[in-house]
Amino acid sequence: MSPEPQATLELQRTLVLVLDLCGTFAFAVSGATAAVRRHLDIFGVLVVSFAASTFGGISRDVLIGATPPAAIEDWRYLAVAIAAGVVTFFWSPLVERLRNPVRLLDAVGLAFFAVAGTEKALAFGLSPLMAALMGMLTGIGGGMARDVLLADVPVVLRADLYAVAALVGAGIVVGGHLLGLPVVATAVAGGLACFALRLLALRRGWRLPVAGGAPPPDGDA
Amino acid sequence: MSPEPQATLELQRTLVLVLDLCGTFAFAVSGATAAVRRHLDIFGVLVVSFAASTFGGISRDVLIGATPPAAIEDWRYLAVAIAAGVVTFFWSPLVERLRNPVRLLDAVGLAFFAVAGTEKALAFGLSPLMAALMGMLTGIGGGMARDVLLADVPVVLRADLYAVAALVGAGIVVGGHLLGLPVVATAVAGGLACFALRLLALRRGWRLPVAGGAPPPDGDA
Amino acid sequence: MSPEPQATLELQRTLVLVLDLCGTFAFAVSGATAAVRRHLDIFGVLVVSFAASTFGGISRDVLIGATPPAAIEDWRYLAVAIAAGVVTFFWSPLVERLRNPVRLLDAVGLAFFAVAGTEKALAFGLSPLMAALMGMLTGIGGGMARDVLLADVPVVLRADLYAVAALVGAGIVVGGHLLGLPVVATAVAGGLACFALRLLALRRGWRLPVAGGAPPPDGDA
Repeated sequence: MSPEPQATLELQRTLVLVLDLCGTFAFAVSGATAAVRRHLDIFGVLVVSFAASTFGGISRDVLIGATPPAAIEDWRYLAVAIAAGVVTFFWSPLVERLRNPVRLLDAVGLAFFAVAGTEKALAFGLSPLMAALMGMLTGIGGGMARDVLLADVPVVLRADLYAVAALVGAGIVVGGHLLGLPVVATAVAGGLACFALRLLALRRGWRLPVAGGAPPPDGDA
Repeated sequence: MSPEPQATLELQRTLVLVLDLCGTFAFAVSGATAAVRRHLDIFGVLVVSFAASTFGGISRDVLIGATPPAAIEDWRYLAVAIAAGVVTFFWSPLVERLRNPVRLLDAVGLAFFAVAGTEKALAFGLSPLMAALMGMLTGIGGGMARDVLLADVPVVLRADLYAVAALVGAGIVVGGHLLGLPVVATAVAGGLACFALRLLALRRGWRLPVAGGAPPPDGDA
Repeated sequence: MSPEPQATLELQRTLVLVLDLCGTFAFAVSGATAAVRRHLDIFGVLVVSFAASTFGGISRDVLIGATPPAAIEDWRYLAVAIAAGVVTFFWSPLVERLRNPVRLLDAVGLAFFAVAGTEKALAFGLSPLMAALMGMLTGIGGGMARDVLLADVPVVLRADLYAVAALVGAGIVVGGHLLGLPVVATAVAGGLACFALRLLALRRGWRLPVAGGAPPPDGDA
């Protein structure tokens, strides 16, 4: 079915790196923004930036046995996360006013990470179902770490179609892999589907159902 | 002392799988119940179900170097956790009314996990003391992940004899291993002891001592 | 540059063990003190002691692929953590009155951990930049685990020069490694620098800058 010659593998790896770095920047901004809002100091802001942008990938790598994780072995992830954190720290009023572009960037990061995470899990021989799950984890793990560090319930667990968008993107990558379709084409299709679904959910306020009807304002019984 | 022929090892592995899946269901229900109470959406409920039911085992596997962890490699854990989450989500009033059976199931899960976790750590060559600790971690890790995700102090750290029951069960398994007793017999004995101790603690309100006397109602100074 | 004969490697390993155990005791006391204040039971206090004293090292070991982590494989870490937890639990009023000595001990632990974590990461072949980062993680990871378990925002993210002190100590070790200086000398220099910087920050109330001016009293917008 899937021939996987050397060149394809090489391409797959380069693709993973580029997607990972773009996603890293987007997620680091989301982490730094949340940390600035909670009045963390500059160091705390950088830690949350790094955690938000790399925890998903680090969890994936630890779980599939790819240690040391890419984000630890390769200084570029750290550099990108710190750059995003510093920019957000010193221009946070600007970043706050740019809320919509930041959300857009976050959706880009989610799409990048879901696709890259799935590709990497497939490259490490995980089963298709679990590779899709690892792709989703790569997408949502950073945001969960950010919220746990800030002592909040992860927003991804109570909000709109965030993880589902990641799962759809990951599913398309896995489907393409099973059908032997070209890697780049399915990666682009998966990423676009994730991005579009996330944007639509934001614009139209799509939400997943909650047990027992709508939650009270602050969501606590 | 302990002969450990091929058949015993095989049996040990099958035992670990069956105990793990039963415990997974029980813990997923506990996670889903807590998530429904906090008004998470269906996806959040499923994530907390999966985390509550597999985080203990995943931590154990990452720590003993058994990557990818069983819960990631084997789709059955995911399937069982999702089934438990869906059932709890759609019939949560029923599950709430069944509080006592759910607590019973949770005690069953604790016993299963403590025994299975200890067996696996022993099979990976950990020292008896640390194998017992890994068994306890397998039993309480999921509940801790559930509470951290919901931004609570883990109930296992402040409540009745939960972890101690797991530790007693794990200790019996380790003791049997050191004495060369049959694996199944010590597993059953350890599981029953853990289950019985947990039930007694629930019925009689046994608690561990707290420094400086009884805590105030909401436990915060 | 760096000759690294067998004897130096041996010395490096012994150094790592001794530093690790001293830091373990100091951090376990800090964890137990926080847990006693939150009225956890004796078991919860011991778990937080163990987490606060070993989570940094365990994270480091999982990330660099050194599984099972030293704190899991070697019973001495557990024994030291439990001893510190028991002492703090039964003599918590005393430990509270000894707040200044405890802070001193904590600064000692931070220095020990930052140096030992960096040495170990270097011994596992990480790049100098990432080895320094792993040293910092070893120093601050336990305190972060302690605070996350107690459902607080990690104090290291919002307080005075804690992580920066760890990073300076780690940086000196890495610098000495790059220059081929003797291991013991750079370890002592790195540890003393970290300790001194931490103490000065405590005495003089040095803090890192916060975006948008001083935070409100309880630091929440």
